[in-house]
Amino acid sequence: MSAELLRTLRAAIGDTCVLTHGDLSAWELDWRQRWRGKALAVARPGNTDEVAAVVRACAAHGTAVVPQGGNTGLVGGGVPDASGTQVLLSLTRMNRIRELDRANLTLVAEAGCVLQAVQKAADDVGLLFPLSLAAEGSCTIGGNLATNAGGTQVLRYGNARALCLGLEVVTASGDVWHGLSGLRKDNTGYDLRDLFIGSEGTLGVITAATLALHAKPAATMTALASCASLADCVTLLGQAQQQLAAGLTGFEAMNAFSLSLVAKHMPQLRQPLPAAPWTVLLELSDSESEAHARERFEGVLGQALERGIIGDAAIAESVAQSRTMWHLRESIPLAQAEEGLNIKHDISLPVSRITAFCAEAEAALSRAAAGMRLVNFGHLGDGNLHFNVQAPEGVDAALFLSEREQEINAIVYAAVAAHGGAFSAEHGIGVLKREEMVQYKDATALALMRALKQGLDPAGWLNPGRVL
Amino acid sequence: MSAELLRTLRAAIGDTCVLTHGDLSAWELDWRQRWRGKALAVARPGNTDEVAAVVRACAAHGTAVVPQGGNTGLVGGGVPDASGTQVLLSLTRMNRIRELDRANLTLVAEAGCVLQAVQKAADDVGLLFPLSLAAEGSCTIGGNLATNAGGTQVLRYGNARALCLGLEVVTASGDVWHGLSGLRKDNTGYDLRDLFIGSEGTLGVITAATLALHAKPAATMTALASCASLADCVTLLGQAQQQLAAGLTGFEAMNAFSLSLVAKHMPQLRQPLPAAPWTVLLELSDSESEAHARERFEGVLGQALERGIIGDAAIAESVAQSRTMWHLRESIPLAQAEEGLNIKHDISLPVSRITAFCAEAEAALSRAAAGMRLVNFGHLGDGNLHFNVQAPEGVDAALFLSEREQEINAIVYAAVAAHGGAFSAEHGIGVLKREEMVQYKDATALALMRALKQGLDPAGWLNPGRVL
Repeated sequence: MSAELLRTLRAAIGDTCVLTHGDLSAWELDWRQRWRGKALAVARPGNTDEVAAVVRACAAHGTAVVPQGGNTGLVGGGVPDASGTQVLLSLTRMNRIRELDRANLTLVAEAGCVLQAVQKAADDVGLLFPLSLAAEGSCTIGGNLATNAGGTQVLRYGNARALCLGLEVVTASGDVWHGLSGLRKDNTGYDLRDLFIGSEGTLGVITAATLALHAKPAATMTALASCASLADCVTLLGQAQQQLAAGLTGFEAMNAFSLSLVAKHMPQLRQPLPAAPWTVLLELSDSESEAHARERFEGVLGQALERGIIGDAAIAESVAQSRTMWHLRESIPLAQAEEGLNIKHDISLPVSRITAFCAEAEAALSRAAAGMRLVNFGHLGDGNLHFNVQAPEGVDAALFLSEREQEINAIVYAAVAAHGGAFSAEHGIGVLKREEMVQYKDATALALMRALKQGLDPAGWLNPGRVL
Repeated sequence: MSAELLRTLRAAIGDTCVLTHGDLSAWELDWRQRWRGKALAVARPGNTDEVAAVVRACAAHGTAVVPQGGNTGLVGGGVPDASGTQVLLSLTRMNRIRELDRANLTLVAEAGCVLQAVQKAADDVGLLFPLSLAAEGSCTIGGNLATNAGGTQVLRYGNARALCLGLEVVTASGDVWHGLSGLRKDNTGYDLRDLFIGSEGTLGVITAATLALHAKPAATMTALASCASLADCVTLLGQAQQQLAAGLTGFEAMNAFSLSLVAKHMPQLRQPLPAAPWTVLLELSDSESEAHARERFEGVLGQALERGIIGDAAIAESVAQSRTMWHLRESIPLAQAEEGLNIKHDISLPVSRITAFCAEAEAALSRAAAGMRLVNFGHLGDGNLHFNVQAPEGVDAALFLSEREQEINAIVYAAVAAHGGAFSAEHGIGVLKREEMVQYKDATALALMRALKQGLDPAGWLNPGRVL
């Protein structure tokens, strides 16, 4: 049976593109090495018809298909299970920019295009593709869309979903939906695009996308500000949104412990502001000039200083200084890893509830695990926190993780639910958060999702065991 | 059978809220008087549980439910058919603003809230709800979302879909999905929200929504510019987007014939610029000041004049002048109605294809119907044209419509398809464009839509005969 499937796959996409031997860990093991699977084969189709042929062959042989992009996911959604029965469908050979339309502000990229290549294609013609995240050098646009990736500029430009105007998708039956619309408005029926986006390969395989480009700002400038409390950060956000409107393209908050870990493990990185309970990174994108950007930043931050909302501020004097500020923020994940394993939560809340949530969750965690240390940072402008619990000082981090993870997750997610938040903001569900789906997701929503899965993939061969 | 259903409905939502006698044309006849239906009853539930009870009762009695908001739709999606067997479910009694969250920039509105009331609720706290369209004084937010309404500020703020963060929906089985999320990021499963938005009541009944608010601009300013060609309008759009970025909140184009009809039928309206092949209305929203807005407008338009992209321009000197300019644009539909019936098309195209499309379609129409006159205007910034064919001068408009509509639609929609456009940009499908769905929509997309309908409404009692 599986020998016949392999023959069919080889005939469809070529011998060299169906891998069954040797070290396949580039596809079978996720990059954080949390999930190691075993694939029946790794199929590497080179175009849409070949993807459709792979899906049809697998369906005909009752074999599950696990689509994969750059294998940079954080929830185990893109690696096969350990059964050795699933076909890993890698999209990385499909990496062409098919078209760039300057007047329409769009480009068409195949699923396997690395995000950075998409950014560069836009940049090369003086435009901006604003999706930006840590893995951009290796993640693919197909994976970004399959997981509705977020990143640092969601506040202004939205997540991956908001940057996609059309899709080409291979369905569960191996048909191709040609939906590469470059239209801003299209009310001809149900919104298939947004249904496939974020469905983590469980409803169809995204093979290409039409992406929305934006005008490149004349100047981009970064500032840091220190706040005495998270509540002050939220107040600053409101004022910055009021005064800078769409000019405010980034608003990141970092608690003192996050930056202390950066200071400890990356002492070479200069921290422009003295330690404070909270430090905010603001990014302003200006359509006029650097001078105008500075003037606007000075207005907002000057007023915030006067009103006592911030205690101190530093506006970058150069592009290099802006990069240094971002580098501080981006170093937190590595610094916390240096400190030892921790228990990660990618959560979102209404901005109005974040202060109460953090106070409540932190108190509950401290009661349950005295001395635990909170690495609390993230995209405050979107209500998205990376709320990570580090073992108490001197406690074995691996042991703490293995013994306490479930309990700590339960505390955090219960508080998230109580404040109207989500237990996955930008990373998705994959295999990691399936139990949370059952426990915290609205029962009617779950029933609707199951009906959608049943409707679009009745046999269930597309990425089974993920999301639902 | 139906007597029993009526008893059940009366018990569930009260005698006075189940109408079966007297003049029901407010619900049975659309406002343009194109579709007159006959309802078994008009049910007017007052809260979500009552909506669920109506849906359950109808399902139990095998009776179709037609949800309706302000009855301002343009495609017949919200009026019952003529059979006298469908229950018209009016949401207009559900008109509370349930909550307004300033820090989170959201409000929760029930489906029956009139759009203008939502705008006002935001305005009352110094914020902006940017959805704006001609029917805003009587259309409801539930209807806006069910049809994914567009309007005049889509260029900057997106359509209704982009302004909605969460929904409360009664499903086909009469369950309630409590999805009133106020979150900017939520990757916990499939995107149910966007699937219900734009589904025209065929997948579920929207009962409430969490809407995204924006900072109110410090100044909003309008300008008119005249162009020698549509290609120049497109060039101007590109330059305005590059220089004004998110400040450009409106970009409307009007051909000479549109404005000549306004001049003919509304001679009292002053037209600031001499007649030109094309006139563009630009709107700039500025987060700083009126002076700053003017300076930026002068920069963009001055440069366009120098480069010969525009022949003339007028920047409004006051709010009153801005209103006058918008009034010209908004008077086109009425002026064309005064001129006589015409054959309307609400279409969208990639901006890069609009010039070629218009040239081709206009030539084909002139060949087919010598002397036909094109009322061509719309939201050029979104690629959305109202491309309406008026009878040749002196020809009976009603006769022209009845004899030529099908042929003219076929010419227009074939050209739309050839240029990668959509045959419904912002008005939806309803009953009006079901044949176009079959003819022009990608076959795989249609199959997927049918599978979704089957999955979420297997018995098919929700707004049958609409969309699909």
